Amino acid sequence: MTDLPATNRTMLTEVKPEGVLELYLADLPMPTPKDHEVVVKVQATPINPSDLGLMVGAADVTSARAIERDGLPGISMNVPEAGMRFMAGRIGQALPIGNEGCGLVVAAGAAPEAQALIGKTVALIGGEIYAQYRCLAAQMCMPLPDGTSPEDGASCFVNPLTSLGFVETMKLEGYKAIVHAAAASNLGQMLVKICKADGIPLVNIVRSEEQVALLKGIGADIVLNSNDEDFVEKLTAAIAETEAFLGFDPIGGGKLSGQILGAMEAAAVRRMSAYSRYGSDQMKQVYIYGALDVGPTILNRNFGLTWSLSGWLLTPFMAKAGPEIVGRMRARVAAELTTTFKSHYSHQVSLEQAVDVATLQAYNAKRTGEKYLIRP
Amino acid sequence: MTDLPATNRTMLTEVKPEGVLELYLADLPMPTPKDHEVVVKVQATPINPSDLGLMVGAADVTSARAIERDGLPGISMNVPEAGMRFMAGRIGQALPIGNEGCGLVVAAGAAPEAQALIGKTVALIGGEIYAQYRCLAAQMCMPLPDGTSPEDGASCFVNPLTSLGFVETMKLEGYKAIVHAAAASNLGQMLVKICKADGIPLVNIVRSEEQVALLKGIGADIVLNSNDEDFVEKLTAAIAETEAFLGFDPIGGGKLSGQILGAMEAAAVRRMSAYSRYGSDQMKQVYIYGALDVGPTILNRNFGLTWSLSGWLLTPFMAKAGPEIVGRMRARVAAELTTTFKSHYSHQVSLEQAVDVATLQAYNAKRTGEKYLIRP
Repeated sequence: MTDLPATNRTMLTEVKPEGVLELYLADLPMPTPKDHEVVVKVQATPINPSDLGLMVGAADVTSARAIERDGLPGISMNVPEAGMRFMAGRIGQALPIGNEGCGLVVAAGAAPEAQALIGKTVALIGGEIYAQYRCLAAQMCMPLPDGTSPEDGASCFVNPLTSLGFVETMKLEGYKAIVHAAAASNLGQMLVKICKADGIPLVNIVRSEEQVALLKGIGADIVLNSNDEDFVEKLTAAIAETEAFLGFDPIGGGKLSGQILGAMEAAAVRRMSAYSRYGSDQMKQVYIYGALDVGPTILNRNFGLTWSLSGWLLTPFMAKAGPEIVGRMRARVAAELTTTFKSHYSHQVSLEQAVDVATLQAYNAKRTGEKYLIRP
Repeated sequence: MTDLPATNRTMLTEVKPEGVLELYLADLPMPTPKDHEVVVKVQATPINPSDLGLMVGAADVTSARAIERDGLPGISMNVPEAGMRFMAGRIGQALPIGNEGCGLVVAAGAAPEAQALIGKTVALIGGEIYAQYRCLAAQMCMPLPDGTSPEDGASCFVNPLTSLGFVETMKLEGYKAIVHAAAASNLGQMLVKICKADGIPLVNIVRSEEQVALLKGIGADIVLNSNDEDFVEKLTAAIAETEAFLGFDPIGGGKLSGQILGAMEAAAVRRMSAYSRYGSDQMKQVYIYGALDVGPTILNRNFGLTWSLSGWLLTPFMAKAGPEIVGRMRARVAAELTTTFKSHYSHQVSLEQAVDVATLQAYNAKRTGEKYLIRP
């Protein structure tokens, strides 16, 4: 067993009652593993939109300024009043961050399954991973093939399992095809590859011609630019052709979810012989799975009464899907880690750089094609 | 068999391509019943919000003016451009109206089940009931106890089955209590009585102190006025107390559906020990079952990711619930027609009066406590 340092540098986020969010590093005591636990030296951990929701939340990043806490760097940001209501539940709590990552097992408890991991490179999930070390149950680690690079192992869970979860949702709910918004994301690119391999029609919605070219380049058949003047007509035609009455939208705010439901309804109405003021009897489902836009969702309800707009979250989905489906999903991720599920990182930063004001403002912009990897 | 007149005066609604909706009477040929059909002389038929959606749709009732077609009275209204898009599917079609009613069977086809109804007072469902006569399958009629008045028999289906459908939805989806918006309606009053009889906690939302008094007067426990300054706090407290994580909203437009989801989440979060930026894992469901406000639905998504907002419609619900549940619902309506399911009509009008401009503007205002019954 390696000699571990006495402290574990960890990133924390805290909302203060006076309307300020602080994001900072702290040297916490090094944890000692219990029997079934291992200590992983974190080598790479991505900044996902879901992490930013906790790191930054509803704070105003334009107000960010550098601070120091106990000699370590940090950032302080103002939180607008509406944002404070949104985050009321976390006031006064210093919360660790980091949903997933990859690292080397450097210490383990006495249990054989923990001991068996010593020296292995593992992917891990479970929060608190924006740190030098993470102590967690051995079963939360997925051993990676020898020679897997930290970059390739860092994003084994969130995006791969979410994109596979969309396809499993489609099967469970009896749909034939999928509409995906903000489809040029890392997750969207994985979904393009999965659907292409599995022969599932996928209607991709993006926001620029560059993104159209990007997705066409990796084999997407249908890519629509929501800034095109005839976007709604094209979307309706694509849904009519593919019968994509299931959609996933990570934006959430604004009109897009409602536009997708409206286009689904228009496509369904084309097949009806008689008018009904209640609309078509085709079920139409859109899931909001993120909040790239935390503004209000606006639904112009031109889609009858046979529809549903719902939240989608990976963990409860996996609980509902059950161990057989989840096992299938995990096995596919492991098998296709450097192909279908390969993530691309535009920037690599240290923990210290991640709490630099300019760097925060850059990764928080969530520009398509930009993705940050923390190397603690 | 009674001698029937040669024509059947019928109300029709038609959207014309130039942006006008006409609501008018026409003398159509008297139908001849097929073997399994009966002809019902319509004695009473209510004007429900669902009927108004077809009669008036997205037309501007303030622009209504009297017209005459083939010597019979009618009304012409302008339709705004957005309304024309909404009703594009019905342009050029003269559509009959009237979802339900009550009448006397005056003619029947040869089949025994049709013949058996001759001379009976029946409740009927199936559209086209704003007319002097309606020819329909015998099985679409529900014979009423001798001596049932046309007023009592007119609204046997839409409101009674919808209010019972809410309770059955609650049971099917595993909820314990219900939030109901615009709860002072005829349907809302039925729901109060059902829930009181069945011991189901019901959180009623109304829009005035008069409506609070009305519902308290018929035995409602929890009635909240959405115009109160502390409405959201009271709603949250009521949901926390009753665990009402299922809501029904006939308004649809505006912020109310989202406010209900937000209050459900706030109530659920109170029971959580640790903060999660994804919100509570308590499923929260609101159904929009009407469109008293056809404006956009605005969701300020302060309710995590475990939620669903969906359309609710009686016919597909009954198809999904299956014959056993539907049979139970129908039997209860018949047994409690003059108690739980008694409707109150503030105005009775003839077919001719129903197509009078001032009368239309009055019933289309859908004022709580006002309900119109057509007596053809």
